[in-house]
Amino acid sequence: MSSVDPFLAKLERARLAAKKLATVTTTRKNAALEAIAAAIEAGVPEIVSANAEDLARGREDGIGEGLLDRLRLDESRLRALAAAAREIVALPDPVGQVVRGNTLANGITISQVRVPFGVVGAIYEARPNVTVDIAALALKSGNGAVLRGGSAAEHSNRVLVRLIQEALASVGLDGEAVQTIDEFGREGASRLMRARGYVDVLIPRGSAGLISTVVQESTVPVIETGSGIVHVFVDASADEEMAVSVVTNAKTHRPSVCNAAETLLVHRDAAERLLPRLARELTGAGVALSGDETSRASVDGLLAADDETWATEHLALEMGVRVVESLDAALAHIERYSTRHTEAIVTQDYANAERFLAEVDSAVVMVNASTRFTDGGEFGFGAEVGISTQKLHARGPMGLQELTSTKWLVRGAGQIR
Amino acid sequence: MSSVDPFLAKLERARLAAKKLATVTTTRKNAALEAIAAAIEAGVPEIVSANAEDLARGREDGIGEGLLDRLRLDESRLRALAAAAREIVALPDPVGQVVRGNTLANGITISQVRVPFGVVGAIYEARPNVTVDIAALALKSGNGAVLRGGSAAEHSNRVLVRLIQEALASVGLDGEAVQTIDEFGREGASRLMRARGYVDVLIPRGSAGLISTVVQESTVPVIETGSGIVHVFVDASADEEMAVSVVTNAKTHRPSVCNAAETLLVHRDAAERLLPRLARELTGAGVALSGDETSRASVDGLLAADDETWATEHLALEMGVRVVESLDAALAHIERYSTRHTEAIVTQDYANAERFLAEVDSAVVMVNASTRFTDGGEFGFGAEVGISTQKLHARGPMGLQELTSTKWLVRGAGQIR
Repeated sequence: MSSVDPFLAKLERARLAAKKLATVTTTRKNAALEAIAAAIEAGVPEIVSANAEDLARGREDGIGEGLLDRLRLDESRLRALAAAAREIVALPDPVGQVVRGNTLANGITISQVRVPFGVVGAIYEARPNVTVDIAALALKSGNGAVLRGGSAAEHSNRVLVRLIQEALASVGLDGEAVQTIDEFGREGASRLMRARGYVDVLIPRGSAGLISTVVQESTVPVIETGSGIVHVFVDASADEEMAVSVVTNAKTHRPSVCNAAETLLVHRDAAERLLPRLARELTGAGVALSGDETSRASVDGLLAADDETWATEHLALEMGVRVVESLDAALAHIERYSTRHTEAIVTQDYANAERFLAEVDSAVVMVNASTRFTDGGEFGFGAEVGISTQKLHARGPMGLQELTSTKWLVRGAGQIR
Repeated sequence: MSSVDPFLAKLERARLAAKKLATVTTTRKNAALEAIAAAIEAGVPEIVSANAEDLARGREDGIGEGLLDRLRLDESRLRALAAAAREIVALPDPVGQVVRGNTLANGITISQVRVPFGVVGAIYEARPNVTVDIAALALKSGNGAVLRGGSAAEHSNRVLVRLIQEALASVGLDGEAVQTIDEFGREGASRLMRARGYVDVLIPRGSAGLISTVVQESTVPVIETGSGIVHVFVDASADEEMAVSVVTNAKTHRPSVCNAAETLLVHRDAAERLLPRLARELTGAGVALSGDETSRASVDGLLAADDETWATEHLALEMGVRVVESLDAALAHIERYSTRHTEAIVTQDYANAERFLAEVDSAVVMVNASTRFTDGGEFGFGAEVGISTQKLHARGPMGLQELTSTKWLVRGAGQIR
């Protein structure tokens, strides 16, 4: 696949470097992660200066304060990024793990072992921290990384990728394993989505629109890290203190992230007992509530909810509230509006808990716990690749293991069929 | 997702029926498999008669004898299909298996359990046996199935699907879980590829062209069951009898299938010792050999190989032969031409065996065994979903487990972050 096309040539260099990375020892990969962390710490002035160019252009282009904040790299954020790279050193290397295997009746032994994908592609927007994140996770799992971080962060990403490449080279690895394709602009992003044979899996991170575009256009297999219209259902038997605590935490602990609750469903038989206090606590924490007719009848001051309310990932201190007739009605609402990320029930009823766990078709289904626990770190995976809302390959929080494929090793003594 | 569009309405009925199927007991699913087997046996005259219509149209359209043979269903083939459905009864049900789990420091327990995908789509060509195969495998793994079996087998598929639906209903399951969309023609196939939200995974089975179209056009996640340009490398140290036996079996045991060998690579230092006999045995078994210059110099009567030879999946008694300078040259040839299905080395050298296993990037990598062992049945999976040549989700022979996703169950006592 040699090519004079500069885009394909870059992808090919990544592919060849990744092939070498696939059989590198854990010790060497950990040394590279340490070198990346040190390079980021030593490179603070240079990175901050490049980042200032991106910020200046962002301000000129009139991008909002939220985007500017995501774009910003200062010394403390860079030190946190370096620390995150060092944390990956401590994680077990998935490459070479034996998943299963056995000896066949004819004496052949078969074993399924974890191997790197090859090259992981990532498309994201204005988050230069993701550049280091994905590169470090890809490296530890033996993969190359081709990064499209978006033009808004182009200067920052260019410096970060160069530092990462130099860090790889400093421990004797091929720096070409990590590449940015920002210089190829939007066309580069489109080409990356069709780069079968060069890129083995593509991970979009960002807005629902970005993810949807990648899913629609990509011929490279995609792992969808989706949005979360997350539901908490307070069942008839729910304990009052637990319901208040779980719902408030799920909504307000960090409202801008995908595992934050967006819709509160309350069983009709618990509405009178619990809804006024739930509404008071949520409102007191600054949450703007939009309710259906029944909840507005029992609680004053709620905005009117409509279909749009249930279908929106607010990512802010806003929440829909609906009183439902039954567990079945709660399940039906979830079936219709859920994005299959995380749903929780608060209940003291064993049978209802088990039914909810069995019937809700989401990546993570919870009983009596805050939806904020859907998180790689909380699950003990130690690193945040993203949260998959698709069913193929990975579902829910993704650890290093989800950045690997497998292959079968077959050892014989001349057996034939 | 209610719809008056007859195509989407059909997919929606499959989706709703599949949702019910997801929590059905193994006992009930096994009863359905028995009922399907019985219905096929009882339906032999009706199926054969419908099949005769397809065969007659196929002859009118002038399709070749190979295709006609694949299309043909007679009593003995139907009894074999029924027997295959009964064999699936004996396989373990993957649904509900706990993959891993633990208790977090805060007392929350998490467990990852296998769940059905939901609806499995399949696109295939003129093989009505696949209709029963996929429906039975989907059923056992708790999935619905939407089948596009192609217009050439439309009459056969229609009867088979109706019998399967009736068999499901006879044991109290919703027959709508299995659907054919043949009546929507090519447009139906195109729409199936874009039916995100209705179909959870799409499995193409058939020619390289069909698979490539599905991969390019589908927005539904695809499991690619690919073609096999399968290599056997005879190393310098290979045992003569073993090399002859493995190579001959790999090529001639069943040349029309994807795990049959297509290219023979021979180490330079073994060429003089082994190549003449290998060529004689293969030619004696009816194999037409095309060789590179070096092999043609040492063996008379070989056709001239070119780049096309190495890049072709012959699926017939044809084989490319190339003498390579070294293990590295063999690995480079495989890297360039392999379709990442199966490759084998024949060697007595431990280090070379381990290097080959580590460095060849294929679904199955073998030492001293016939490539014909890449097979779900041989691996002990008991059923043939296909052999995945992609790296996402499934790689190599796919069993029932590969027709499932997972979800995380989280059980707490009111924990918050």
